[in-house]
Amino acid sequence: MSKETQEGITVKKEENFSEWYQQVIQKSQLADYSTVKGCMIIRPNAYHIWQEIQDDFNKRIKKLKVRNAYFPLFIPESFFQREAEHAEGFKPEVAWISNTEEGERLAIRPTSETVIYDSYSKWIRSHRDLPLRINQWANIVRWETKATRLFIRTREFLWQEGHCVYETEEECDKETRIYLEEYKKLCEDLLAIPVIIGRKSEKEKFAGANYTLSIESIMPDGKALQMGTSHNLGQNFAKSFKINFLGEDGKEKLPWQNSWGISTRLIGALAMFHGDDKGLILPPKVAFSKVVIIPILFKKTQDKVLKKAKEIEKKLEKQNPILDDRDYSPGWKYNEWELKGIPIRIEIGPKDIEKNQVILVRRDNNEKKSVKILNLQKEIEASLDIIQKNLLAKARKQMESKIVLVKDFSEFKKAIKAGMAVKAHWCGVRKCEDEIKDKSGGAKSINTPFDQQKNLKERCFHCNEPAYGTWYFAKSY
Amino acid sequence: MSKETQEGITVKKEENFSEWYQQVIQKSQLADYSTVKGCMIIRPNAYHIWQEIQDDFNKRIKKLKVRNAYFPLFIPESFFQREAEHAEGFKPEVAWISNTEEGERLAIRPTSETVIYDSYSKWIRSHRDLPLRINQWANIVRWETKATRLFIRTREFLWQEGHCVYETEEECDKETRIYLEEYKKLCEDLLAIPVIIGRKSEKEKFAGANYTLSIESIMPDGKALQMGTSHNLGQNFAKSFKINFLGEDGKEKLPWQNSWGISTRLIGALAMFHGDDKGLILPPKVAFSKVVIIPILFKKTQDKVLKKAKEIEKKLEKQNPILDDRDYSPGWKYNEWELKGIPIRIEIGPKDIEKNQVILVRRDNNEKKSVKILNLQKEIEASLDIIQKNLLAKARKQMESKIVLVKDFSEFKKAIKAGMAVKAHWCGVRKCEDEIKDKSGGAKSINTPFDQQKNLKERCFHCNEPAYGTWYFAKSY
Repeated sequence: MSKETQEGITVKKEENFSEWYQQVIQKSQLADYSTVKGCMIIRPNAYHIWQEIQDDFNKRIKKLKVRNAYFPLFIPESFFQREAEHAEGFKPEVAWISNTEEGERLAIRPTSETVIYDSYSKWIRSHRDLPLRINQWANIVRWETKATRLFIRTREFLWQEGHCVYETEEECDKETRIYLEEYKKLCEDLLAIPVIIGRKSEKEKFAGANYTLSIESIMPDGKALQMGTSHNLGQNFAKSFKINFLGEDGKEKLPWQNSWGISTRLIGALAMFHGDDKGLILPPKVAFSKVVIIPILFKKTQDKVLKKAKEIEKKLEKQNPILDDRDYSPGWKYNEWELKGIPIRIEIGPKDIEKNQVILVRRDNNEKKSVKILNLQKEIEASLDIIQKNLLAKARKQMESKIVLVKDFSEFKKAIKAGMAVKAHWCGVRKCEDEIKDKSGGAKSINTPFDQQKNLKERCFHCNEPAYGTWYFAKSY
Repeated sequence: MSKETQEGITVKKEENFSEWYQQVIQKSQLADYSTVKGCMIIRPNAYHIWQEIQDDFNKRIKKLKVRNAYFPLFIPESFFQREAEHAEGFKPEVAWISNTEEGERLAIRPTSETVIYDSYSKWIRSHRDLPLRINQWANIVRWETKATRLFIRTREFLWQEGHCVYETEEECDKETRIYLEEYKKLCEDLLAIPVIIGRKSEKEKFAGANYTLSIESIMPDGKALQMGTSHNLGQNFAKSFKINFLGEDGKEKLPWQNSWGISTRLIGALAMFHGDDKGLILPPKVAFSKVVIIPILFKKTQDKVLKKAKEIEKKLEKQNPILDDRDYSPGWKYNEWELKGIPIRIEIGPKDIEKNQVILVRRDNNEKKSVKILNLQKEIEASLDIIQKNLLAKARKQMESKIVLVKDFSEFKKAIKAGMAVKAHWCGVRKCEDEIKDKSGGAKSINTPFDQQKNLKERCFHCNEPAYGTWYFAKSY
C-alpha cells in the first residue's frame, strides 16, 4: 500500500459534492496538490486522458488544416498594453518574472494572443498567406487568488489555443463556430460529457473579442462549468498588432481573427459527471486500462487459475488490461480498481475455469454476468461500447435534471438558491446582468443556444425589456 | 510571397557554418526569433518533427513501463537548496517570479528533479511502489546570457524528462543505460543523426548526479553537441528529499534514482547534419510532407496536367503530399521546396502524361528519374527508405571525418585549432580537464565510450598520469 490512504471515498456525492470531488480526484490518483500553492500535479491516470484528448483533437484539426506550433512562455509587458480591453481583462491574473535585465517586465502567458500576433504581423504579407491556422499545446499561468480546485481552478494548467487569421469576416465567423462544434463532439464522443453550446453575453465574453462562443455543462451540484470557448476577435488585435495584408485587388487590408481553447479542466468535468460513491468511472475511450483481471486464488488451484488469467491478459492485449496478482484479498482489489474507475472487471476462480467462463462486472452499473472465455473479446468490446454510451446518456439526464425553466426573477432566485441552473428569456444587457448577479448571490449568464438568438416577443425575466433569446444562468466554477 | 525573404541561402555551409545554420532554420521556416530576447518560436514545420519525436519516444518508453505525467512549472526556492550540488549548478540560470504573496521566491523550472521528488517522497512508502517510472513533456527555462542560437541555446525550450526510482543500485544502473540506448536508436532510426555514446567526466556530469551518460554528435564545424543525457543520481536526492521505503525485510531504506532527457535541440542537430547550400533536407520519417508535386502548366494542356496531378496527390495520400498549383514558375517552386527540405519532388508535364510517367527527384542527391505512374507508390516508398538510410550514412561519414586520434597535447591543440574533435587516452581527472580547457581555448571532454572505460596501459595525453579509457574532446555548443 502506498502512503496515500487506500480507504474509499468517505462522503457521499449527493451530500457533500465539493468534498466528494476532491477525494475522488486524489484517491483515484488523477491529480495531487503540489507543495507550490495553487498548483497541481497531473498524475499518469489523468495525463493519459489528456493524451487521448490531444490525439483526438489533433486528428480533428488536421482535417481543418490547422498546424501545431509553439510560441514563447514569456510576453513583454508592452505587448499586453496594445489591446486595451484584453490588457484590462487579464491584468489581475498575470504572474511576472523578476530577473530581466532588459528593463521591461515579462509576463508568464495567461493566454497567447499578444505574443502570437506579434509573430503574425511579421509573417503575413499577402492574401496568399491566408487563411493562417495555427494551434499550440501549452501550459498557462493565471495567478488566481480564489481557492484551488484540482483541474478546475489552479494557477497553472494545460490547454490548447488555436489562432486563425482570415481574409474575410464571413470565413472567420463560420470557422469560429466550427471549432466550437468540434469541442462539442470531442466532449460527447470521447469523454461522454454532455454540453450546452451557445454564445456568451457581452459581460462574459473574452477580453478583446467581438463575441465569444462556449461549451458548458451544468454539474451535479447545479453549478455551470465553462469547458471550451471560441472567440471571434474581429479586427481588434489586427489593428493593435498591425497585422495587415495585400488583397487580391492590390489594397492593404486588415484581416479577421479567432482564437479558441480547451484545457485540462475537461478532466475535472469528467470526474464530476462520471464518479459515484465508490470513486471514479472512466469512460472506456480514455481509460488507461479498460479491463482489470482479478484471479481468485486458493492454495490448491492458484497455479491453474493464474495461468488462465495470464492467457486472458494476453488475449485482451488491445484493452491494455491489468492483471492484479498481488497478495491482497479479491475484495480489497475490487475496491481499489472501482475507486480508480476501470470500466470492466473480470473475476476468474477455479469454478469458472471448470466451466470455461469468467465473471464480467461493469463499473458503471455493477451488472455481473458469466461469459464464455471463447466469446470474451467480443463481449468486452461490446460492453465497453455500451458503457461509453451509457455514461453519456446518464450524464445528460443528470444535467437536464439540474436545469429549470423560469418565468420571473422570483422563480429565478428560488431556483438558484436550490442549487439549480435556469433557462429564461433575457435581454442580454450588461447592466441587467450586473443586477441579476448582485441580487441572486452570484448567478451569471452561461450562454444562449444558437437557434434561440433572436428577438422574441417575450420579455426579459428580470428587467422586463424585450428579450433577446433564451439563456442559461447558473452559479459557476 | 510572405514578408519573409524567399531568396535562398546566401552563404555556403562550408564557408560560414554559423550564418548558414541561422539562415537554414529561419528560411525553411523551422523556427523564428521572438521579440522576447533569447526565446524562439517553433514553427509548424519543426513542431511536426517534435511530434514525431514524441510519438516515437512515447512508444519506446511505454514498453519500458514508463508513464507520462505533468508536474508544476514553479519550484519553491527552498527545494533548490536541499541538494547542495544541484542548487549550485543551476543557480546562475534560474528565472524567478516576483509576485508571490507567500514570501518565498518561486523558480521557473530549469529541470524538475526537486519538484518531482517532493511528490515522490509523499507517494512512495513500500517496495511495492517501486520501481516508479514517470516521464514528463514540458517547457524548460534557463536564463542563458550567451548568444541565442535557435534550437541550440534559447532561454525556453521543450523537452522530456524521465524520473525513475528503484529498490536497488543494480536496477538503477541498468536502466540508466537503457534509456540512453533508446535515445541512440531514436536519433539514428528516426532523425538519421549519428551519435557517440558514453559516460561524461566528473567535471561535466549533471549537478547532483553520481555519473552522467550522454549521446553527442560532432557537428560539421567540429563542435560537439550534447543531445541527450541519462543521469544516475544514486541516493543523493533520496537523502535530501527524504524518499524512503519499507523493504521486504521490514527495514526502512533509501531508493536509487535516475533522470534522463532529450530536447528540441535535436531539431537543431538534424538541420546541421542534413542541410546543404540549397537549404534543409528533412529525413523522410519526420518530414511534414514527404512529397511535393509540381505540375508543369502551359495554357493549352494545363487542365489535363492538373487533373493528373490531383490523381497522383490522392494516390500518395499516405505521404501527405503537397500539390503546388500556385501561380509561380516551376523553377521558383523547386527552390522553395528544396529550401524547406521536402524529400521527394515529382514533376509532371504534358509530355510525361503522354508517356504515363512522372519525373521523380530526390532532395538528398538531386538524382532524377522517370517513373511510370503505375509504379509510383512503390517507387516513392522505396526512395523514401533509401533517402532515410542515405542521410544517416552521409552524416556518419561527415561526423567521422571530423574526429582525429591524437597522441599528445601538441597534436591535441593543433587539431582543436583546426576545428576538429579529437579522441585520446585521458586520465579523466577534473584538474587535468580544467588545464586542458584553459590551454586549448575551451575544448572540453565529451564522453568516453562504454567499452573503453577501463584502466589502460596508456598514459594521459596531457598530464601523463595513467589513462582511464579513451575520450572524445571538442569545443562544444
